[in-house]
Amino acid sequence: MTPPPAAHALADTVASIAPPDADVERATLAAMDMKVKPRGSLGRLEALAARIAAIRGTATPGRLHPAVVVCAGDHGVAREGVSAYPQEVTRQMLATYAGGGAAVCVLAREAGADLVVVDCGVAEPIDDPRVLRRRQGPGTASIADGPAMTRAQAEAALEAGIGLVDELHAGGAGLVALGEMGIGNTTSASALCAALLPADPAEVCGPGTGLDGAGVTRKVAVVRRALEANRPDPADPLGVLAALGGFEIATLAGVVLGAAARRMPVLLDGAITTAAALVAVRIAPAAHGALLAAHLSPEPAHRRALAALGLAPIVDLGMRLGEGSGAALALPVVGASLAVLADMATFADAGVSDSGA
Amino acid sequence: MTPPPAAHALADTVASIAPPDADVERATLAAMDMKVKPRGSLGRLEALAARIAAIRGTATPGRLHPAVVVCAGDHGVAREGVSAYPQEVTRQMLATYAGGGAAVCVLAREAGADLVVVDCGVAEPIDDPRVLRRRQGPGTASIADGPAMTRAQAEAALEAGIGLVDELHAGGAGLVALGEMGIGNTTSASALCAALLPADPAEVCGPGTGLDGAGVTRKVAVVRRALEANRPDPADPLGVLAALGGFEIATLAGVVLGAAARRMPVLLDGAITTAAALVAVRIAPAAHGALLAAHLSPEPAHRRALAALGLAPIVDLGMRLGEGSGAALALPVVGASLAVLADMATFADAGVSDSGA
Repeated sequence: MTPPPAAHALADTVASIAPPDADVERATLAAMDMKVKPRGSLGRLEALAARIAAIRGTATPGRLHPAVVVCAGDHGVAREGVSAYPQEVTRQMLATYAGGGAAVCVLAREAGADLVVVDCGVAEPIDDPRVLRRRQGPGTASIADGPAMTRAQAEAALEAGIGLVDELHAGGAGLVALGEMGIGNTTSASALCAALLPADPAEVCGPGTGLDGAGVTRKVAVVRRALEANRPDPADPLGVLAALGGFEIATLAGVVLGAAARRMPVLLDGAITTAAALVAVRIAPAAHGALLAAHLSPEPAHRRALAALGLAPIVDLGMRLGEGSGAALALPVVGASLAVLADMATFADAGVSDSGA
Repeated sequence: MTPPPAAHALADTVASIAPPDADVERATLAAMDMKVKPRGSLGRLEALAARIAAIRGTATPGRLHPAVVVCAGDHGVAREGVSAYPQEVTRQMLATYAGGGAAVCVLAREAGADLVVVDCGVAEPIDDPRVLRRRQGPGTASIADGPAMTRAQAEAALEAGIGLVDELHAGGAGLVALGEMGIGNTTSASALCAALLPADPAEVCGPGTGLDGAGVTRKVAVVRRALEANRPDPADPLGVLAALGGFEIATLAGVVLGAAARRMPVLLDGAITTAAALVAVRIAPAAHGALLAAHLSPEPAHRRALAALGLAPIVDLGMRLGEGSGAALALPVVGASLAVLADMATFADAGVSDSGA
């Protein structure tokens, strides 16, 4: 709970976020039309490259080195029986991320991405130098009974996320992919979506890592209790975050704000990271332009939140693991779009007859 | 038109094709259930890895070095005005593939794949050592007036494809991704699909590289003429191939047969490569098990042929360029599935509590 340096002040970061550059986006699409292929024939790869160019503010963004940021935190609400796994799995998985054996580790390596693992507030910290400590506390209080955290903790977590992006940026990263771990955090994400979209809890609660039907019913009831206990006001997104969020979700929302301020694209993963992005966009609407949806999970909050954000997933393979696995899997497609923009010959370069089709 | 070595005899290859090993597929799915993640939570990545393991005949397939094979040929039917581009573009694009500036070159490099470019019979060969010559003639005759090629040419092209796989296999490739180039070849692919599915020409003809509505209407009429001129018999797939195919399509069908015989997975691209696979499967039904669908293009023959083959695409990004671009784009997802199988820790390795969810 180190106080954030002044340079990371939340208000300053929010004020500095610019939307993607629409002129650059148009110029990049026009450059794609000169490449040696029928117009538009690379489909969404073309729009993806143009959007990334617009986020970066240059029609020649080159390659972007990706970093996958996995934020972990524990949730008081886990004691309500809303997960198929016991709370200690959060800590066990942190060790697994550090050791390199988790899905997100394998997929990040495949994508040539750095993997940054952050303890944002698990119940009991692990002693491993490969895990960054940005702890706001030993897990949140249960949202079913009152606020998860104080407003000051929510702000500190947001600023910790902004600070993480500063470090990644200094280390050469050009794009951030989000990941998370926290037993109980689909309940927190569902509650955030219910409050912010808004939506009925039954429309945004799903099986998470593997609840059965009775478990989902229990989760819906817990989210209803959380909304009643906290009466969140969607016009006060920081208050909603403090009431219903988690330390990892708040930190991820800060990563979104920091990345948007630094013109770095943000690749979302599943329901939890998308809920974090929803919080960030409610705090700073201009951050919306930096978001890219990697994949679609079967968790209902994910589909609802992506739709509210107007984002179309890059892949849809029924993945529902979280931890950044979907984002890491989609990274090569993002890289491919930038490679096409950077490296493909034009009709003129190649001496190929252009029909204009 | 070198006679094929005896080892490549078509009948021998067809006879040697075994279906994927169902026991290995089950064992691989069971191994995936031990990985440190909720059961099934990596979605289609798990089934993809298990299918590849079954094709290879081992539950530990490791990584597979991919080769993208781009086969090119010219089509007499191009003179019927069925393409947005003039015929010389086939030859110009061969030079662009050799030079490394085409989309498939960029995407294959991104995926760490070898790119093999093959002249299967363009109208006029190019003098470039980076292009393999497996020519069956200077382009086909127009399918609108009679058979595209002789049965002997179709057989020779199939055997050339089998021979290409022998070379790739000797060079260390473990997986083959298909690509193609040939002005007019969506017309040939549509005619093959119309004959083999079967389907009405209006259901399988689309804009190809960029025809307008009048062009598509013309293409439908040309395919109807081709069916009337050739009266193809679906019970004689080699005859259908000779009547309506192209040299690159016939060679690709041979690549499918050769790869299936060598237990190498085959990643399809768009409508043309899928039509080639349809021909291969009609010649050797056991080859079906080796096929993987990379993506879905908007070309109607593609959707119809994939459905007939029972294949679900890995990505769907509206790509319609052909040349292997969709297959190359999907290669990292295939690689990711194998990396997960090879490298992910188990619950026991990681010391993580397993709920069995």
